[in-house]
Amino acid sequence: MKVTVLAPATVANMVCGFDVLGFAVEEPCDTIIVTRLNERKVIMEPDPIFDLPTDPEKNVSGAPLLAMLEAIDDNIGFSVKLNKRIKPGSGIGSSAASAAGVVVAANAMLNNRFSNDELIQFAMHGEKVASGVKHADNIAPCILGGITLIRAIHPLDIVALPAPDLFVSIVHPQIEVKTADARSVLKTRVELKDAIKQWGNIAGLVAGILQNNHGLIGRSLQDHIIEPVRSILIPGFDLLKEKCLDAGAIGGGISGSGPSVFMLSATRAIAENVGLAMQQSFDALAIQNHVYVTRIAPQGVRVIQTEP
Amino acid sequence: MKVTVLAPATVANMVCGFDVLGFAVEEPCDTIIVTRLNERKVIMEPDPIFDLPTDPEKNVSGAPLLAMLEAIDDNIGFSVKLNKRIKPGSGIGSSAASAAGVVVAANAMLNNRFSNDELIQFAMHGEKVASGVKHADNIAPCILGGITLIRAIHPLDIVALPAPDLFVSIVHPQIEVKTADARSVLKTRVELKDAIKQWGNIAGLVAGILQNNHGLIGRSLQDHIIEPVRSILIPGFDLLKEKCLDAGAIGGGISGSGPSVFMLSATRAIAENVGLAMQQSFDALAIQNHVYVTRIAPQGVRVIQTEP
Repeated sequence: MKVTVLAPATVANMVCGFDVLGFAVEEPCDTIIVTRLNERKVIMEPDPIFDLPTDPEKNVSGAPLLAMLEAIDDNIGFSVKLNKRIKPGSGIGSSAASAAGVVVAANAMLNNRFSNDELIQFAMHGEKVASGVKHADNIAPCILGGITLIRAIHPLDIVALPAPDLFVSIVHPQIEVKTADARSVLKTRVELKDAIKQWGNIAGLVAGILQNNHGLIGRSLQDHIIEPVRSILIPGFDLLKEKCLDAGAIGGGISGSGPSVFMLSATRAIAENVGLAMQQSFDALAIQNHVYVTRIAPQGVRVIQTEP
Repeated sequence: MKVTVLAPATVANMVCGFDVLGFAVEEPCDTIIVTRLNERKVIMEPDPIFDLPTDPEKNVSGAPLLAMLEAIDDNIGFSVKLNKRIKPGSGIGSSAASAAGVVVAANAMLNNRFSNDELIQFAMHGEKVASGVKHADNIAPCILGGITLIRAIHPLDIVALPAPDLFVSIVHPQIEVKTADARSVLKTRVELKDAIKQWGNIAGLVAGILQNNHGLIGRSLQDHIIEPVRSILIPGFDLLKEKCLDAGAIGGGISGSGPSVFMLSATRAIAENVGLAMQQSFDALAIQNHVYVTRIAPQGVRVIQTEP
């Protein structure tokens, strides 16, 4: 049996929603093919482009499947072929797509035995391999689609929010921002008055999402805590953002821990203009870049083909 | 012309929504009668019970009306008679009710010339008189009803949220917590990890309110920043809260800057039990107390009578 899924890119750390809010986009997606084996093992087919580890324990797709195998007694195994379109290190959930895609495919072979919450827990083993931390920031929206809120981690409490009808421009500049560096610039303590602004904004953002109020979403897309320190790792960030807002974006910020930057817009035409502003900004700095114009995806990982 | 209004008590600093979330309750209410004068002045009728200042500039009802008079040219003035049921210093928006009630009554005499946002701005002058700070934490829910989010202060951005179908138990222990003391115990800096928990919770709380999801509201009613330090000003707070949760409350915390404590419950019967637990807790400490059992009010200040 062979199951093919599409696993979408995701944007974590949604501005004022640092560590708690993320969303899935329609493009780019990884295509992942999982083939059923008749023994309890996981095989990673070699990836000629990204040269990912083939030892399943060290692979972001392998570790989640090994965790899933530990939870069942079935005489089953998985061979995984990744067709990665989401570049590792881009800050739009490349590892999450690899981890979330395989568990959804494997679950389809198991007659969807596991709940979404369980799938998220398995997939988080992939994030542990990728970054050392079992976080759900990208995994949750990748599996659930739409916008997801991670209200709490212990115990994990994930709230699925609807996907507002918004378009997304993402620029991936070809620079490296190590997650460890992005973490290390953060201050461990913050001003209470800034924290209050931040929770006013995330409350406004969630209300705007649930009321489909673009004006409120836009006014709430402000980050007084993380962006001011992290944006120094992205050359020309402030000017880029200004040009995107001038082009009509309602707001946006750093995707994940960068280097990608995302912006939300009310129409595809505006999102295309915003994408152009993004490209021109990095072109002007002679930094190679790639722009995606897409939508917030109502759906997460999708099974697109099942072969016997 | 004479206009009579009911101005409700309000709960500000709704647990994780410190400084940004508050709500109106159906009881207690102040009854306020405003009589039209034919000259530009404000007269405060003496209050025999609470001995409030009769100089309108120093009175929480007088200052908002003076601010309103400054915004208009009409040859009009107001005489104000307060029938206060909400005790000053109780932490359930006594000054806000006095300030919000009169501006709604006066606006009725002016054919509702002013928007709710403008009325809130006028009424905030009363809070300045009461506490030295022009805050909208209680004013906004008192005027708008339901739950209100103050997303930002400069410029003021208030988001009206619906009133979930929840019952409220409030206990007012007869102790004094000065707002200045309640402010001074707060730390000016907080741990980022606690701030993240707080904004995860306020995001969950707003989603729960908009989705009318009592379970999510309950799980989100956690305050990792303010309550741990402010609750030391309220004797027996931790045990009181435990007993309220045991009695079936879904969650709650300090009302405003205290000393009142509020709890939310799914039914009136549970809220009555919770109220009993509150009373017993303070009785056991030999602290006089008064308990209210009421609901979140969908409406704010209401005009109940207009006489020519």
